[in-house]
Amino acid sequence: MDIHDLTRALHTKNDSKIVMLVADGLGGLPHSPDGPTELEAAKTPNLDKLAQKSVQGLSTPVLPGIAPGSGPGHLGLFGYDPLKYQIGRGALEATGIGFALQDGDVAVRCNFCTLDGNGNISDRRAGRIPTEESAPLAIKLREVKIPGIEVFVEPVKEHRFVVVLRGAGLGGNVEDTDPQATGVPPLKPKAHDADSEKTAEVAAEFVRQAQELLKDEKKANGLTMRGFAARPNLPTYQAVYGLRAAAIAVYPMYKGLAQLVGMDIVGAPQTLDEQVQVMKDHWNKYDFFFLHFKYTDSTGEDGNFDAKVQRTEEFDAAIPKVEALGPDVLIVTGDHSTPSYLKSHSWHPVPTLLYSHCCRPDGKTAFHEKECITGGLGQFEAKYLMSLALANAGRMGKYGA
Amino acid sequence: MDIHDLTRALHTKNDSKIVMLVADGLGGLPHSPDGPTELEAAKTPNLDKLAQKSVQGLSTPVLPGIAPGSGPGHLGLFGYDPLKYQIGRGALEATGIGFALQDGDVAVRCNFCTLDGNGNISDRRAGRIPTEESAPLAIKLREVKIPGIEVFVEPVKEHRFVVVLRGAGLGGNVEDTDPQATGVPPLKPKAHDADSEKTAEVAAEFVRQAQELLKDEKKANGLTMRGFAARPNLPTYQAVYGLRAAAIAVYPMYKGLAQLVGMDIVGAPQTLDEQVQVMKDHWNKYDFFFLHFKYTDSTGEDGNFDAKVQRTEEFDAAIPKVEALGPDVLIVTGDHSTPSYLKSHSWHPVPTLLYSHCCRPDGKTAFHEKECITGGLGQFEAKYLMSLALANAGRMGKYGA
Repeated sequence: MDIHDLTRALHTKNDSKIVMLVADGLGGLPHSPDGPTELEAAKTPNLDKLAQKSVQGLSTPVLPGIAPGSGPGHLGLFGYDPLKYQIGRGALEATGIGFALQDGDVAVRCNFCTLDGNGNISDRRAGRIPTEESAPLAIKLREVKIPGIEVFVEPVKEHRFVVVLRGAGLGGNVEDTDPQATGVPPLKPKAHDADSEKTAEVAAEFVRQAQELLKDEKKANGLTMRGFAARPNLPTYQAVYGLRAAAIAVYPMYKGLAQLVGMDIVGAPQTLDEQVQVMKDHWNKYDFFFLHFKYTDSTGEDGNFDAKVQRTEEFDAAIPKVEALGPDVLIVTGDHSTPSYLKSHSWHPVPTLLYSHCCRPDGKTAFHEKECITGGLGQFEAKYLMSLALANAGRMGKYGA
Repeated sequence: MDIHDLTRALHTKNDSKIVMLVADGLGGLPHSPDGPTELEAAKTPNLDKLAQKSVQGLSTPVLPGIAPGSGPGHLGLFGYDPLKYQIGRGALEATGIGFALQDGDVAVRCNFCTLDGNGNISDRRAGRIPTEESAPLAIKLREVKIPGIEVFVEPVKEHRFVVVLRGAGLGGNVEDTDPQATGVPPLKPKAHDADSEKTAEVAAEFVRQAQELLKDEKKANGLTMRGFAARPNLPTYQAVYGLRAAAIAVYPMYKGLAQLVGMDIVGAPQTLDEQVQVMKDHWNKYDFFFLHFKYTDSTGEDGNFDAKVQRTEEFDAAIPKVEALGPDVLIVTGDHSTPSYLKSHSWHPVPTLLYSHCCRPDGKTAFHEKECITGGLGQFEAKYLMSLALANAGRMGKYGA
């Protein structure tokens, strides 16, 4: 029995509103042992004030020592055990470019490559062909026609593009056709299980027609297919929590992840202020709002401590506007840490704050990594954040009599 | 492998005494963000003094955000994973009125109802018939005779009573006969599995005879049966811990829960002082004592902050008398929080204290929610409290060489 068995069985409904603000990559590191983290250095008067009536702690995205990608990071926050629910590479790539996968779709990451006169790969990335050249080629591949199958081809960047196959009876377990070597031809698509035989056949036919369409290209006259993946079968927020959920994000990846768990994507905001306005505009239609703020992560990835501090302050400035909407439960967290010191996602637990009228405040007057260590939420797995949110919203019945 | 696999394999025996004092619903909430909880407001000089040589922390009864009933709350404290071991509704109801279920018994919660001339339910609760009228009717139903089956009928309150069926081959998986609606007849008992076919037949025969016995009643001329449940199959304290365990409780529910894990129910105390006296009287006969104090929960349920504070102080006053017996391990905890602010069981982790000569004291000088956050036990699942108790009692061998 896992936490979703409990939330499915015990959730109740009321008029409460739950807001989850995700500052991507929120947690950080000091640049010297006695220095501050980005969040400690940032002036965050609004978060600090909120902390006085909240409870805080550190959430572990997956398990100690495990740095997650955006997929498992967000699944954890959404309450989906990131070790149980996995999003295949192809499905994540399609999600990341905003492609709305449907049940039964199989998505594949594809690379343009260069083939020599014998059909062997001479360059696995087609000379890192620029996007201006590769995107039209990807679009040209939409001419591929396979009876009974809808084929979608979407440009990504440089040598990368995505193929989505839609039709009955397509399993997602097909081996990569990239041999990870040059001087040899691409491999034939090979099914791992009986349910994926048809997918392998369809992929082989796609490759055949695509090669024909590409045959006069100098650089990108071939392709390989990797990370075949069916749309992950994730139960919806409605099913496991009884929540009408809205996602308010700027970037396609986070809209896509939210869509996979049944959230509605609302608005088309480009700034944090616009995101808060979208929340306000949709306040009455939803029970749960996921708002994604990207720049605490991207500045961390850039290794820019000062820029991450500044973005954190920008995020802090939005807090009163969200509070003004009167959420019953307000959560501030991140999907993982992205310390500018490491220039990458990391395993460090993530500062997390939860406000509700019955959250049992822990007496903190500031919100940051060091205070979180001794906060009332302790250290907990991110997958439990949603059951805490529901409980604090008065949306959970008692377990057992 | 779970914690019981380890305690079964590693427990050893010695002359130590372990005492677990359970103040039901111990944890609370402040009534304003900067206010004290009930335990923080209470004057608890004895617990605070005990804290100086103890280690404290917060125990999570089930999982974060999950408020347990008394059943799972106590199973957790007793070290039985409350998600693995579940007590069916009927079994808990029987336990709650002090009925000692035996292996193979099936217990059922029953309601008197009112049937109209066509046998359809006109009132699902028989006009909320008062207990003075319903109890004699329940006792009258003891006249039901079914060959090969012992039938026990026990009054509960108002329209509610309990039936326990005892005999060979009775499974517990039978559907409720309450249609949850009026204007329709009660449903026929229907088995969910082959092992419960006989139970369904016996239940149908019980209903037939009972209707006959009740036919001249105005209000309670019918009945419905709900929550069919076999006695849960819980391993005993003797088997998993090697402990001779005694339970000292005032209320039938807690005696019943203790009995399900093989504790002896000792004494018939009515007050906390009498409970401590019973412990003293049985000190030499047992290794483990579970003492249950109800009133920190009932005052919380009543929403009475001041009364809960007072009951907490009453509980505190008993501490020196227990200490005087010289327990090797002394635990103070609750089965869940019952904040008077919420007037109900809650999910908030429970203040827990453990004293032993080798507990690694954490330097605390007071015992309450805020101190527990930074206590040496950290935040832990209640199901691990018993392995900690055994270890502190010197009753656990080493795992692996």
